[in-house]
Amino acid sequence: MAATTPQSIFLKPTPAKAAASSINPSSLAPNTLSTSKPQKPCSIKCAATAHQIQDPIKPTHPLPSEDRVYNFAAGPATLPEDVLLRAQSELYNWRGCGMSVMEMSHRGKEFSSIIQKAESDLRALLEIPDDYAVLFLQGGATTQFAAVPLNLCSPDDPVDYIVTGSWGDKAFKEAQKYCKPNVIWSGKSEKYTKIPSFDDLQQNSDAKYLHICANETIHGVEFKDYPIPKNKGGILIADMSSNFCSKPVDVSKFGIIYAGAQKNVGPSGVTIVIIRKDLLGNAQGITPVMLDYKTHADNSSLYNTPPCYGIYMCGLVFEDLLAQGGLKEVEKKNQKKAEILYQAIDGSDGFFRCPVEKSVRSLMNVPFTLAKPELEAEFIKEAAKESMVQLKGHRSVGGMRASIYNAMPLSGVEKLVAFMKDFQARHA
Amino acid sequence: MAATTPQSIFLKPTPAKAAASSINPSSLAPNTLSTSKPQKPCSIKCAATAHQIQDPIKPTHPLPSEDRVYNFAAGPATLPEDVLLRAQSELYNWRGCGMSVMEMSHRGKEFSSIIQKAESDLRALLEIPDDYAVLFLQGGATTQFAAVPLNLCSPDDPVDYIVTGSWGDKAFKEAQKYCKPNVIWSGKSEKYTKIPSFDDLQQNSDAKYLHICANETIHGVEFKDYPIPKNKGGILIADMSSNFCSKPVDVSKFGIIYAGAQKNVGPSGVTIVIIRKDLLGNAQGITPVMLDYKTHADNSSLYNTPPCYGIYMCGLVFEDLLAQGGLKEVEKKNQKKAEILYQAIDGSDGFFRCPVEKSVRSLMNVPFTLAKPELEAEFIKEAAKESMVQLKGHRSVGGMRASIYNAMPLSGVEKLVAFMKDFQARHA
Repeated sequence: MAATTPQSIFLKPTPAKAAASSINPSSLAPNTLSTSKPQKPCSIKCAATAHQIQDPIKPTHPLPSEDRVYNFAAGPATLPEDVLLRAQSELYNWRGCGMSVMEMSHRGKEFSSIIQKAESDLRALLEIPDDYAVLFLQGGATTQFAAVPLNLCSPDDPVDYIVTGSWGDKAFKEAQKYCKPNVIWSGKSEKYTKIPSFDDLQQNSDAKYLHICANETIHGVEFKDYPIPKNKGGILIADMSSNFCSKPVDVSKFGIIYAGAQKNVGPSGVTIVIIRKDLLGNAQGITPVMLDYKTHADNSSLYNTPPCYGIYMCGLVFEDLLAQGGLKEVEKKNQKKAEILYQAIDGSDGFFRCPVEKSVRSLMNVPFTLAKPELEAEFIKEAAKESMVQLKGHRSVGGMRASIYNAMPLSGVEKLVAFMKDFQARHA
Repeated sequence: MAATTPQSIFLKPTPAKAAASSINPSSLAPNTLSTSKPQKPCSIKCAATAHQIQDPIKPTHPLPSEDRVYNFAAGPATLPEDVLLRAQSELYNWRGCGMSVMEMSHRGKEFSSIIQKAESDLRALLEIPDDYAVLFLQGGATTQFAAVPLNLCSPDDPVDYIVTGSWGDKAFKEAQKYCKPNVIWSGKSEKYTKIPSFDDLQQNSDAKYLHICANETIHGVEFKDYPIPKNKGGILIADMSSNFCSKPVDVSKFGIIYAGAQKNVGPSGVTIVIIRKDLLGNAQGITPVMLDYKTHADNSSLYNTPPCYGIYMCGLVFEDLLAQGGLKEVEKKNQKKAEILYQAIDGSDGFFRCPVEKSVRSLMNVPFTLAKPELEAEFIKEAAKESMVQLKGHRSVGGMRASIYNAMPLSGVEKLVAFMKDFQARHA
């Protein structure tokens, strides 16, 4: 375990970290600056000039720096360290413009460049076809649970929902207000541990769409492939909140993809919607203007003030993902992380258990239990002492859950696995 | 003018600034750190310890630091400098917890403390009575234009709107989807330059509520007092987006107050709703769960993932406003700023003009025109050269607009006034 403890990181910083660690950002609290006396006065030269173009983000985050924890939260979740450092460096004055991104008019040239680059980088990452609009919205996936049927259905239209976990179920329930949704498959009786065989699905050809939740954050169940919609419009809709940008996706297979940003691509408060343009413009009359996709598509997400800072953060993450080599490379890293964690669970002789069927286990959210449930609180407590936090399972299912999104470094999973083995040795 | 130019600020920093300016936050870009060589290696000690309680924010922002502009944008808008520096100092690692606020689980103890303190400080600032809920939501005031009637009305209920500008008009139009709104007074024919006499209003006693926009951001028209609602429930509702927390308000006079944060209290992406609790629980069946106030009141704004970082920023601003002495003190500063700007306009012998009736001129948004409109582009361009930006009027009305929210320092308005006099002398 020694090779992966934070202590070893302190002793052997990577070259990039060594340079960065000579200044600890947390020492820059204004109150510290104005009251404490540095032992030797020193000046640091400012290299920024007005509207200077910054170098692209170079991902250098194999290991977290000394004062970081490994954060296994399901969302909001860990973000890439270099993205946070970049954000910190330019929070007060974005690239010499004299303002924070939080202060910029959303219609000014500075923010226009930020949102346009964010969209363009996301299009590059997911190879989004030109006949799809990309919208930066608010309100989380929960708002989309209403927006999707409001935009695509009349009140009497049938629609199909495959329910593989709590989020799919919530989406179905909200749709009942606006159309006639049918659950054509539910994993509830098997505690949401499976994805159905697509061949056996009884799809309704009159349905306006088929809806899935591509990755169930609470239950750790992930679609590895997607059902072909048999409705007349051929419309498949996916809530991808918790696996968005974790792997390549063929966007052209979908009518709408939507995702809260706070798992893989940014802070909470931004919802991304990717919608085929021919689906715009048919919202029910009762649709709030803010839930009408056409409002936002017609105004390039600037109908009203968007969540500017969150969009900026997503843009930094998109840059980082591109710099990593794009989503194929990101997927490889995610596969590797998930593999060693599931192997540790499956190889524990039943000490740890994951209830999810092996073929559909999530690369993002790994729920597991202990054969001795009375040890779970101890497990979570000891892990926290070793700087691995937020491992408690969702309150609706209990046990543990390790969310290992894009920004969770391999070292974090390695450390967790080492801890699990050690814990088992002490408690088996 | 010399006394207010940025140059004079550089030469005579205030003591607090002098200490802070030895480290320029903009020099901390990671790429700078990893590639440039400081002339003398130096170490800065980190004073932070785990979960250390920070000193309260001490407002020290009479003058912007050397690399700031004076940002007169109507929203998103300028934020207090000390709040930005605090946010920057703890962006990467919030008070020693090993995470950014952007990475925290919204249900963890760290973020719970942040949102609870934000609510408690806002309650203190506005003296919000206990029978009112405070909600931190998303979607801007535009989402509230739908949420208000959806929560308070049946489809056939009449409601009254006083329309004193574009935002009140938008609120009225959105309400048409969900009830029977009536415009009982409109300032449109007089180009939105007036507030009606309350005695002459023909209120409908059967109306479910009376709606006003307390400050019209585009037209610069502000209610100085509020009409007494004559509907049976006695319910007055106000969109206070652009004057929220700019002065004391007797919350008990209102059924609902709502406000986008991005003018006086934070970044965009947070909407604050203050609602009398007896108005909860009567939403129409078609109300999206995210627009039902009861959803959020029952869950202390944590039904789904809230805009955590924006709420954190609002909390820092609330702290700053309290440290300034509360809203009475803030109002005095805002009155002083508005006074010298309107005096400059009115004392220009018609060179500058403000169309708004004097008694209802906004303390927040000051629209003005030039008698020679052909000079307006030059005015805006020259002002920008002197680091006063975003002075262009809203695209729907033209001319200029200086938004002078809480965080605009007096020195910014003084500099603008000096520039206006100089411009007039050169172009009269």
